[in-house]
Amino acid sequence: MLKPSQTAYVPFVSVENMMRLVLHVGIEKMLTELAAEIEADFARWPLFDKTPRVASHSDIGVIELMPTSDGETYGFKYVNGHPSNTKRGLQTVTAFGLLADVATGYPLMLSEMTILTALRTAATSAMAAKWLAPKGSTTMAMIGNGAQAEFQALAFKAVCGITEVRLYDIDPAATAKCARNLQGLGLNVVSCKTSEEAMLGAQIVTTCTADKQYATILTDNMIGSGVHINAVGGDCPGKTELHRDILLRSGIFVEYPPQTRIEGEIQQLDADHPVTELWEVITGAAEGRKDERQITLFDSVGFAIEDFSALRYVHSRLKESGLFVDLDMIADPDDPRDLFGMILRAQSA
Amino acid sequence: MLKPSQTAYVPFVSVENMMRLVLHVGIEKMLTELAAEIEADFARWPLFDKTPRVASHSDIGVIELMPTSDGETYGFKYVNGHPSNTKRGLQTVTAFGLLADVATGYPLMLSEMTILTALRTAATSAMAAKWLAPKGSTTMAMIGNGAQAEFQALAFKAVCGITEVRLYDIDPAATAKCARNLQGLGLNVVSCKTSEEAMLGAQIVTTCTADKQYATILTDNMIGSGVHINAVGGDCPGKTELHRDILLRSGIFVEYPPQTRIEGEIQQLDADHPVTELWEVITGAAEGRKDERQITLFDSVGFAIEDFSALRYVHSRLKESGLFVDLDMIADPDDPRDLFGMILRAQSA
Repeated sequence: MLKPSQTAYVPFVSVENMMRLVLHVGIEKMLTELAAEIEADFARWPLFDKTPRVASHSDIGVIELMPTSDGETYGFKYVNGHPSNTKRGLQTVTAFGLLADVATGYPLMLSEMTILTALRTAATSAMAAKWLAPKGSTTMAMIGNGAQAEFQALAFKAVCGITEVRLYDIDPAATAKCARNLQGLGLNVVSCKTSEEAMLGAQIVTTCTADKQYATILTDNMIGSGVHINAVGGDCPGKTELHRDILLRSGIFVEYPPQTRIEGEIQQLDADHPVTELWEVITGAAEGRKDERQITLFDSVGFAIEDFSALRYVHSRLKESGLFVDLDMIADPDDPRDLFGMILRAQSA
Repeated sequence: MLKPSQTAYVPFVSVENMMRLVLHVGIEKMLTELAAEIEADFARWPLFDKTPRVASHSDIGVIELMPTSDGETYGFKYVNGHPSNTKRGLQTVTAFGLLADVATGYPLMLSEMTILTALRTAATSAMAAKWLAPKGSTTMAMIGNGAQAEFQALAFKAVCGITEVRLYDIDPAATAKCARNLQGLGLNVVSCKTSEEAMLGAQIVTTCTADKQYATILTDNMIGSGVHINAVGGDCPGKTELHRDILLRSGIFVEYPPQTRIEGEIQQLDADHPVTELWEVITGAAEGRKDERQITLFDSVGFAIEDFSALRYVHSRLKESGLFVDLDMIADPDDPRDLFGMILRAQSA
């Protein structure tokens, strides 16, 4: 075989190399830097090519493509959501993503994104809370202690200065796993037997459960004034976590309304219920938290721009870290019109 | 580092391995088998989840995602179109694609698709001509002798029994390249100085040029009765190859009307101009060629189902050929809820 030219190669970040990158940078530093990248991209929100994710639904799950572009760089993520996977010993969510050069259409990087999605989701949550949560928040209730929980806890520690996280999950084994993993990482971790107990003294409540159904993880009586709710788990049609009455009492902040109205907690509300776009809070075009008594809700579903920011972050660290391999993914004949000749020459080579 | 489990791996078919597969199977056999796979999928067309491709346009090109699913397997292709790339020594079109399991959302295979797209486009053209071209066609005019030309010529030889191909390109170097590559492959190859000369005695006319503009590769007076036109190059908004008058005289056959009306030759016609879907000809639900005097036009733009068929074909040959490598692309912790713990253990391992 002839050796492919440099143009043929696309850097690929494997799961192993992504773990190495997290450990190389340090997880809290990486979450902080990701939050900064995401915030910077939210601040230039109008520049981006935005489209609701392209979903292929089946009875037991969904496969989605989430593309976006800032006019110079294009990115997309492939992501699935299959709650029943856990029973088979598989991940509910797996993902990978790609960056490409808008000028040529050539891929710049392919990367695993299962781990990266967990990081960017936590970084986005913490970044939103930095703008919306009550000043001086120190305690977070963490309802749902699955794959996302530790990332959320550490992002809120690193970005918002949370010192105590109070864990609750319907499965005590999940809480035990989460508490064990967070041991020695600088947080006061309290394992709780009910969600009410988890919420004692919490200024921030994060819900991150996985059932694909209309669930009521939080009921109205559980939410006192001034709390910031970070609702992560309600993220597709038919999957919500909060009682509708909570929504009616809250100032609601979202990523991209056309997507959130379909996938978020607000799918329970009228299509014209007022919501504030988070990027407008960041640019100063809209008000964030009104006062210390307001309940604020970040109705997070995950948007393509967050993946774009995360992919660009990883791409910017490729050279320094060397944590990638080159994939021979782009056919690159010497004469671009001679694709067929390249095959012929491969035969004789 | 801990060794990833088998679930973490996704078979990857590189450009080199795709070339090896083509040579291993034999190009004409592979084109014939691809045409059969595509035809079989067209025959079960209503089963598929169909959506127009998701395009991100810029001034100089387009990046597209083309997803589809048959309910059991999901596939998508990433493909760009940048006509000016050729001037930089890059491919106009590069592509890669993925198959995934609908039941779990886990990827089944990642593959280069620059070469595979050239193969499936040619196989689709020839399959359509098998249904639409005049019986006993032996001669094809090939207008546009770029990267796609040799694949078209060999597909029409293998699937339709074409014995002579008459080449024309505005750039004589492209014609010379194409003629050189086709030498000794069993076709009578005639290099022509004008498109009129190329069309002498041709029952089939294939147009496959690359300029992103409204071009008129064929004018009305050039097309006699009974000809089958295989219009490959007009495949995005603002890019057509045929004079509108030809369309008005032709029986028009398309892949997926919502996409073709935006991207195909028929973007020049009213939105309700009658067209026939090719899959209906294959199932017998619609008539193909009416008589030997009718001009038939396959207004090909390329549809996701063709990529799906091609990816499944390659996937079915993985085990036998061994022409792939495993990529560590899916994070796969022992306990699916313990993604964070996997990173922690990577540190200590």
